[in-house]
Amino acid sequence: MARSALKVIPLGGVGEIGKNMLALEYADDIIVIDAGVMFPGEDLPGIDLIIPDISYLVQNSAKVRGIIITHGHEDHTGALPYVVKKLDAPIYTPRLAEGLIAVKLKEHGCLKGTKLDVMKPGDRVSLGVFEVEMFRVCHSIPDAMGLVIDTPVGTVVHTGDFKFDHTPVDGYTFDFTRLVELGAEGVLLLLSDSTYAEIPGYTPSEQVVGETLDSVMGRAEGRVIVSTFASLVSRVQQVVDAAVRHNRKVCVEGRSMVETVQMAIKLGYLAIPKGTLVSLDEISALPHHRVAIVLTGTQGEPSSALARLANREHKHLQIVAGDTVVISATPIPGNQLLINRTIDNLFRQGADVLYERIEQVHVHGHASQEELKMMISLTNPRFFVPLHGEYRHLILHARLAQSLGVPPDNTFVLENGDVLELTEGRGKVAHKVQAGPVYLDGLGRWDINSMVIHDRKLLARDGFVIVALAVDRKNGKVVSFPDVVTHGFVESNEEAALIEATHRVLKDALNGRGRNGDPGDIKATVKRVLSKFYLQETKRRPMILPITVEV
Amino acid sequence: MARSALKVIPLGGVGEIGKNMLALEYADDIIVIDAGVMFPGEDLPGIDLIIPDISYLVQNSAKVRGIIITHGHEDHTGALPYVVKKLDAPIYTPRLAEGLIAVKLKEHGCLKGTKLDVMKPGDRVSLGVFEVEMFRVCHSIPDAMGLVIDTPVGTVVHTGDFKFDHTPVDGYTFDFTRLVELGAEGVLLLLSDSTYAEIPGYTPSEQVVGETLDSVMGRAEGRVIVSTFASLVSRVQQVVDAAVRHNRKVCVEGRSMVETVQMAIKLGYLAIPKGTLVSLDEISALPHHRVAIVLTGTQGEPSSALARLANREHKHLQIVAGDTVVISATPIPGNQLLINRTIDNLFRQGADVLYERIEQVHVHGHASQEELKMMISLTNPRFFVPLHGEYRHLILHARLAQSLGVPPDNTFVLENGDVLELTEGRGKVAHKVQAGPVYLDGLGRWDINSMVIHDRKLLARDGFVIVALAVDRKNGKVVSFPDVVTHGFVESNEEAALIEATHRVLKDALNGRGRNGDPGDIKATVKRVLSKFYLQETKRRPMILPITVEV
Repeated sequence: MARSALKVIPLGGVGEIGKNMLALEYADDIIVIDAGVMFPGEDLPGIDLIIPDISYLVQNSAKVRGIIITHGHEDHTGALPYVVKKLDAPIYTPRLAEGLIAVKLKEHGCLKGTKLDVMKPGDRVSLGVFEVEMFRVCHSIPDAMGLVIDTPVGTVVHTGDFKFDHTPVDGYTFDFTRLVELGAEGVLLLLSDSTYAEIPGYTPSEQVVGETLDSVMGRAEGRVIVSTFASLVSRVQQVVDAAVRHNRKVCVEGRSMVETVQMAIKLGYLAIPKGTLVSLDEISALPHHRVAIVLTGTQGEPSSALARLANREHKHLQIVAGDTVVISATPIPGNQLLINRTIDNLFRQGADVLYERIEQVHVHGHASQEELKMMISLTNPRFFVPLHGEYRHLILHARLAQSLGVPPDNTFVLENGDVLELTEGRGKVAHKVQAGPVYLDGLGRWDINSMVIHDRKLLARDGFVIVALAVDRKNGKVVSFPDVVTHGFVESNEEAALIEATHRVLKDALNGRGRNGDPGDIKATVKRVLSKFYLQETKRRPMILPITVEV
Repeated sequence: MARSALKVIPLGGVGEIGKNMLALEYADDIIVIDAGVMFPGEDLPGIDLIIPDISYLVQNSAKVRGIIITHGHEDHTGALPYVVKKLDAPIYTPRLAEGLIAVKLKEHGCLKGTKLDVMKPGDRVSLGVFEVEMFRVCHSIPDAMGLVIDTPVGTVVHTGDFKFDHTPVDGYTFDFTRLVELGAEGVLLLLSDSTYAEIPGYTPSEQVVGETLDSVMGRAEGRVIVSTFASLVSRVQQVVDAAVRHNRKVCVEGRSMVETVQMAIKLGYLAIPKGTLVSLDEISALPHHRVAIVLTGTQGEPSSALARLANREHKHLQIVAGDTVVISATPIPGNQLLINRTIDNLFRQGADVLYERIEQVHVHGHASQEELKMMISLTNPRFFVPLHGEYRHLILHARLAQSLGVPPDNTFVLENGDVLELTEGRGKVAHKVQAGPVYLDGLGRWDINSMVIHDRKLLARDGFVIVALAVDRKNGKVVSFPDVVTHGFVESNEEAALIEATHRVLKDALNGRGRNGDPGDIKATVKRVLSKFYLQETKRRPMILPITVEV
């Protein structure tokens, strides 16, 4: 069945499945949906970014007809600079996303040579046996799209990231009509966003945040500083709208925020009245109740504008009593401690801080359970695959589908790399291809089994001890007193005593060696003896690194 | 004013203030309230426990009249094994806490020689100028107490961890009468729990969880496995009650859970009908719908019973389809990723998993805003100090107090180590004493400025490179090809090329050295040259460790 089946292959995400990348394959054609990044939490120190493993696509690069982008968020576009270097395929994208992608590709020196095609809602493109159409959905960025994909087996609907919002910031509501038409025509497979499958009810409209921002700008006696994601263009629009209504100038701070705002203005996705935007220099001349500032740093990232403010490390801006800071975002799991610290430090400096737990300064961009049900009801698919979520989200979403009558046998909870083969009548997970996260650190790239990551975790736990010995290459005898260096193991005031004890232990252990003692043997002895000694003395297990220098 | 003032000194907590330990001092007397631990998150790998820095108490040990424990949770008692080794002071504690503390002290070999005095609600004890009375509060462990402390300056009320629960599991409700009396008599200072000062409304009663557990035990067709904190004795009682009602036997699994349950049974805080408790061996003979299991691991701790179950690493127990796992706890910030992974893996094995986001399987043990307001109203204190919370919680709690009429000048948001001096008429933060977290790792103890912690973070970020060189002690010449070892820096398949390049770079750099080149000079050159080279080649900054062996 393999050749005449449609293959659905989630390829990217950390924990999440099919979030950053998904491939659809039929015979000799592959289309790729999204190419996003994830940002590492505190459990992956040193790692800059996480991108999907695209080995499968590279191996089958002759089949890849195009990459379709659903919207401009980084978890759907951020891997493109890495992907386009390995895959020569045209990119089809909504207009705002195109602007954002172009900025990123230029930064990475790979804009030239990449084919970027803008698609409007209703536009269709043929990619091998596939025909792809975009339809408008609501999300927390303008110009977010769902996909209708005609395949030889039937119609596939991919929701992208979505929610239903009847009062979105840009006024463009969800294209229900298209959805209803599709349902009537018959949908083979629904691939739907599971991010908030845990949450009952409906997701509130973006309007709610607009109202909060308006009230904050009105009542605050000092500056209002709003932190949000650079890509949350609609949120920036809401800040501008509220600021203008309350006669405040707006300053945009932080490189990525500035770039995004400029792009959005240029493409017409941000409407800012003339004279509203001011520079950091200019705000110092304004009374505080005439100032609003938009910046990044909602996740407490230490290098962000907000964290620098919180830690009094910002070069040009300092929190003063009377400032109101609004953190307009949801904490990403893994970042909670950093965010808490940032909020605490802002309070310590006298700011009033408004954040999700105490005021409705953010609504998320994903559908809650009742919306997910409506999506399934309207499209009425034969097969259902929950995507965009961690395993538990997919399970809960699959259960929702089953509660609406999708047979359990037609519901597939996949893992990244799983190949689901679908014909008109049935589906099965046929096999697995290479997939999963690739960790980027500087110029390095590692996968989840990396020794680098493993070693870093070990080193972070108990540190290390180096024992350097000079060995006479003629007789294998240790000819010098060992040099001992430790880091992350004992405090500097404990080090001298430890080194002395180490010398003593090694002297006893290596005594009588020589002549036939080879360096490998000496190293093994050092490791064995010191592991035992340190465990006993410190109850810790540092990495022990014997080094022999032959002389 | 210092000698005739009451000093209030929060001493313990990570982020949280006065959570794990607080001292009250007047002239020559000090009493200590609680002595708890914190558990490190993923940002502190290798660290086992975090205890308060008690340097101030040790310096003033002749003044310390006693340690008063408010309840048996580890964040209020867990540091006692470390504290009693440095401070010779009697401990006053509620009865259940006494049982739990005795177990811990025995484990650490310091039960003998420690004076443990049980206090019942209403009991009073004189400690120097202080007279301390316990009164009953509600929390998520039985036998939780608030404190009334008579001081020469006036009456201090310390709430301990509390909530108002009109239907607690053990039937003992909050002692409102005493609170009202105190309010009428006049309270100088209220020290109150701020943990949930962010949450509006009232905290639900424990009864709600009882109802959920009852429904789960009734409807589950297979085993019901409930994970909770060992110290959450009332939750264990609820599991037992629900299991018994639905004709299930109960197996208690995990060392700390077994110990706590045994102790609670012995002291009469857990009522378990004869024949209900069974061993792991016995459950294998029972049909699954007759089995309930209680175990630890709600925070995803890798060594816990639940994580081992989730990862198929448990020796005697394996998840099968049909099992229902209930995670009856709130995620502690910093543990979210581990918990998510645990839930995902349990689902992967076919369990149904119920957790806080999708079902009311837990209520927290702390007062929400309306309860906090009621506490302030009833005690009507002249001074108010919010405790037990991170900085933002204290600020929000202080605002609540001010909204009820406590003057801002009489409200003090403290940091750990701050010394608040209070007389009848006024208070001021006079100075600061040493305080803050002490990190325990094996037998090591480090503070927040530790080089060990600092180095571990560096190592975790970019790893290290060792360059070992043999140097001729006569002429300072490098006499052997350097030995290069890396960990956490490059992947093993990249290592050979890197080492070769390192040799090349060093050869150029060290060329021409010798005679007057001393080892310090050689080391500095190696560091400088390689830092630059590695940054350029890899965009990473590993720790570089040149080691010279003189021969």
